[in-house]
Amino acid sequence: MTDDAFQALTVETLPRRLGAVAAVAEKVGGAPQGWKVREVGDGNLNLVFIVEGETGSLVIKQALPYVRLVGDSWPLPLKRSFFEYHALTRQEARAPGAVPKVFHFDEAQALIAMEYLSPHIILRRALIQGQELPRIARDLGLFMARTLFRGSDLCMKARERKADLALFADNVELCDITENLVFTDPYFGAPMNRHTPQLDPLVAELRADRDLRVEAQRMKHLFAANAETLVHGDLHTGSVMVTAQDTRVIDPEFAFYGPMAFDVGMLLANFWMAFFAQRGHETGGSRAGMRAYLLNVIEETWRVFREEFSALWRTERTGMLYHRSLYEEQNDTLGAEQALGHVLHGVWEDMLGFAGVEIHRRILGLAHNADFEDIEDVALRAQCEAAALRFGRHIAVNRRHVTSLGEINQLAQLLDEGRGAPAGRLS
Amino acid sequence: MTDDAFQALTVETLPRRLGAVAAVAEKVGGAPQGWKVREVGDGNLNLVFIVEGETGSLVIKQALPYVRLVGDSWPLPLKRSFFEYHALTRQEARAPGAVPKVFHFDEAQALIAMEYLSPHIILRRALIQGQELPRIARDLGLFMARTLFRGSDLCMKARERKADLALFADNVELCDITENLVFTDPYFGAPMNRHTPQLDPLVAELRADRDLRVEAQRMKHLFAANAETLVHGDLHTGSVMVTAQDTRVIDPEFAFYGPMAFDVGMLLANFWMAFFAQRGHETGGSRAGMRAYLLNVIEETWRVFREEFSALWRTERTGMLYHRSLYEEQNDTLGAEQALGHVLHGVWEDMLGFAGVEIHRRILGLAHNADFEDIEDVALRAQCEAAALRFGRHIAVNRRHVTSLGEINQLAQLLDEGRGAPAGRLS
Repeated sequence: MTDDAFQALTVETLPRRLGAVAAVAEKVGGAPQGWKVREVGDGNLNLVFIVEGETGSLVIKQALPYVRLVGDSWPLPLKRSFFEYHALTRQEARAPGAVPKVFHFDEAQALIAMEYLSPHIILRRALIQGQELPRIARDLGLFMARTLFRGSDLCMKARERKADLALFADNVELCDITENLVFTDPYFGAPMNRHTPQLDPLVAELRADRDLRVEAQRMKHLFAANAETLVHGDLHTGSVMVTAQDTRVIDPEFAFYGPMAFDVGMLLANFWMAFFAQRGHETGGSRAGMRAYLLNVIEETWRVFREEFSALWRTERTGMLYHRSLYEEQNDTLGAEQALGHVLHGVWEDMLGFAGVEIHRRILGLAHNADFEDIEDVALRAQCEAAALRFGRHIAVNRRHVTSLGEINQLAQLLDEGRGAPAGRLS
Repeated sequence: MTDDAFQALTVETLPRRLGAVAAVAEKVGGAPQGWKVREVGDGNLNLVFIVEGETGSLVIKQALPYVRLVGDSWPLPLKRSFFEYHALTRQEARAPGAVPKVFHFDEAQALIAMEYLSPHIILRRALIQGQELPRIARDLGLFMARTLFRGSDLCMKARERKADLALFADNVELCDITENLVFTDPYFGAPMNRHTPQLDPLVAELRADRDLRVEAQRMKHLFAANAETLVHGDLHTGSVMVTAQDTRVIDPEFAFYGPMAFDVGMLLANFWMAFFAQRGHETGGSRAGMRAYLLNVIEETWRVFREEFSALWRTERTGMLYHRSLYEEQNDTLGAEQALGHVLHGVWEDMLGFAGVEIHRRILGLAHNADFEDIEDVALRAQCEAAALRFGRHIAVNRRHVTSLGEINQLAQLLDEGRGAPAGRLS
C-alpha cells in the first residue's frame, strides 16, 4: 500500500491527515489537533465532515467505494469524486456563486474540501417544514439556464465541449444508476423496488400501461444519447442548500453530458412532489398557502429559466450552433428568435417527460423522497403519492399536447383535491 | 526525427518501407522490389496506393497532414487514420463483408493496408454512367441497419458504448469539417462556397429563407448533440465501391457518435442527386429508365433499412434501451412494436432533414458532386441543380409533414420535369 492508497477518513484521523494540506489548514486556522470535526453525511454515497477551527470552517466530502445505503455489497467507484470536482469548477465558472467554493481536491483519496454552508439547510427539508423561501425559483432558474446554456455548443468551442464530453463519458457507474433506477426499474417488479402497500392497485395499473412504458424508455433513449450539455445529473431538492437569502446547488457527482431538459425536469418534479406531499404535513395547520407557493415556484423557475436562457441566446451565442453569421449578421434577428423558440419548445416537451419519470421512480423505485416518507399515516401518504403518480403519468405521456404550466398546475390541484382519480381506486 | 516519424509514402519508397511488414508481405507475395505500385488517390485527404505482387494485392491508404484539395494551407491531423481503422473494424464486426478487409494498421504512419477491391468502381461513377446496379439498395440498407443498430445502446453494453464514444469524441477536426461545410457555410456567403452562376437568383432566395436556415441549424444541433450510435459520417455514393455482385462501404474517417439518421439521410440525398443529374447525362440517349431505377433504389434502401432494423429490434435488443424486461417479458410484444415505431419515425423525420441539407451543401458549398460537375452544359447543369435545391429545401423544412417516400419521389419527378419551379426563375 502506498501513501496514496485510499483510506476513509474518520473524525479522529481527519485533523492529522488534512492538517498538512495548506489550502485546508489556512482556511480552518489554528492547530489541527484543536479542530472540531463532525461527521454529518446523510446521503447514500459519501462521508461528509464539518471541520471548524480558530479562524474558519469547511466541509470535507469523501466518496466511499460502495453505496452507503446498501452497504459494501454495491461497489461504486471513487472516481465519482473526480467528476464532482470537475462539475463544481465548471458550474462555478458558468454560474458564479451558485455552488460551494472548492478549496482542495485529492483524487486518490476521493475527497473535496469545500465551503461550509451555514446556516443553510437542505431545500427538501425546508419545503417539508413549510418554509416559503423567496429566492429559490429565481436562483435555480438562473443556475439551470447558465450552466446548461454555457456548457453546450450554443456557447462553448466545439473542441472543448468534445474533450469535456470524453472526460465525463467515463462516469459510467453513476449514469448506470440513473439509467436503471430512474427509467426502467420503476416500471416493472424489479427486486429493489418498494412502494406504500396501499398503492398496489395503482402500481399494477401503471406497470400495465403500455404508453407509459414506451414513453419512459423514449426518455431514457434521450437521456443516454443526447449529449447536449454538462448536466448536474441529480438536481432534486435534496441537492440544494438554502437560507432565505442564499441558494446553493451541491452534489454534482452524477454530472455528465446529457439533455438540458433532464435537470429542469428533475427539479420541477421534486417541486411537484413537495406540493403533493403537503397534505401529509398539515398537523400544524393547513398548508394551502404552501401549496400555492410551490405551484408559483414551479412557474417562476421555468419563467426565469426561459428568460435567462433567452438573454444568453441573444448575447452569448458564441458556439457553433445557430451562429450569428446566419441570422443577426444577415439582418435576420427574427430567424434567431424563431430558432430559440424551437430549442425552448424542445426543452419544454422533454422536461415534462423527465419530470413524470422522476416522480414515478421516487414512489415506485429504490430511492424515495422524505417529502412522502415522512408522512407517518400510510393511508394519507398513499393518497398523496397516488395523486403524484397519476400526475406524473399524465405529463410524461401527454407532454407534446400540453401548452403551459398554468394548465398543468391546474391539473395538479385537481388531483391533489382528490378529483382526478377514479372513485374508490384508493382507500 | 525517430524511425516512427510520419513520412508520406511514394511509389518508389513503398516496397522498401512495407516489405518488412509481415501481414503486407504475405498478402502481396514475392520480393518487395518486384511489387507493382500505383498511386490512385482521387479523394481530398489521402494517398492511395494499389500494390500488386506475385500472389496477391492490397491497397495502402495513407493520410496526409493537410487537405489535399486545398493544399497544405489547410492542415488536418493524421489521427483520422486511427478513427478510420477503428471504424472499419467495428463495421466489419457489425456488418460482416460490407467493408474492405484490414490487414495492417500503422498509427504513426497513418496508414492502413486493406483489401484491394477489383473490379469494383466508385458507385457515384457507376450512377453517372447509367449503370443499374442490382444490389446496392439491399446491401446498403442492410449495412446501415446493422451498423447503426448494433453500435447503439439498443444493442451494446452501456459501458462499452460510452468508452467508444469517448474514443471517437477526439475526431474533432473531421466533425468540424462537417459542422461547417455541411450545415452552415452553404446558407450564407462563406468564402469557400461556389455555385453554378446561373443559380444566383435561386441561391439568393434560399439564403434569404428563414425557415430553411433555422431548420438547417436544428439539424446541426442534432448532429452535434445526439451521440446515438457510431455513424460512418460520410456515407455518400463516393464512399461506396461496387460491382454488379458486390457492394463495399469505404472511407469512414469521419466516423463519430452521432444520430442514426445522418448516414441514412446523406446516402439517400446522394441517390436523389444522382436522379436529378440524369438529365445532364442524356447524350447517349434517354435516362428515363435510370431515373426510375434510382427512385426505386431510394424506396428499396429505406424499406430494407426499416425491415432489417425491425428484425434486429426483435432479436438483438440486448442493450439498456427498451429492455425486454418491460415489454416481451411482460407479455407485451405490442409495447415493443410501439416503441420501434417511434424510433423509426424519429429516424425518418431526421433523415429527411439531413438529406435536404446534404443536397444543398453539394451544390452551394465547397465540395461538389461529380454527378452535377460532369455536366458540361452549364445551363443544363444549373437546371438539374435548381430542381435538386428546391427538392432539398422542401424535404428539410417540411420533414414532419411528409408521410412516405412515394410522395417525395413524386415531388422529385415533378421538379425534375421542370414543373415545380416558378416560371422564369431559371433561364
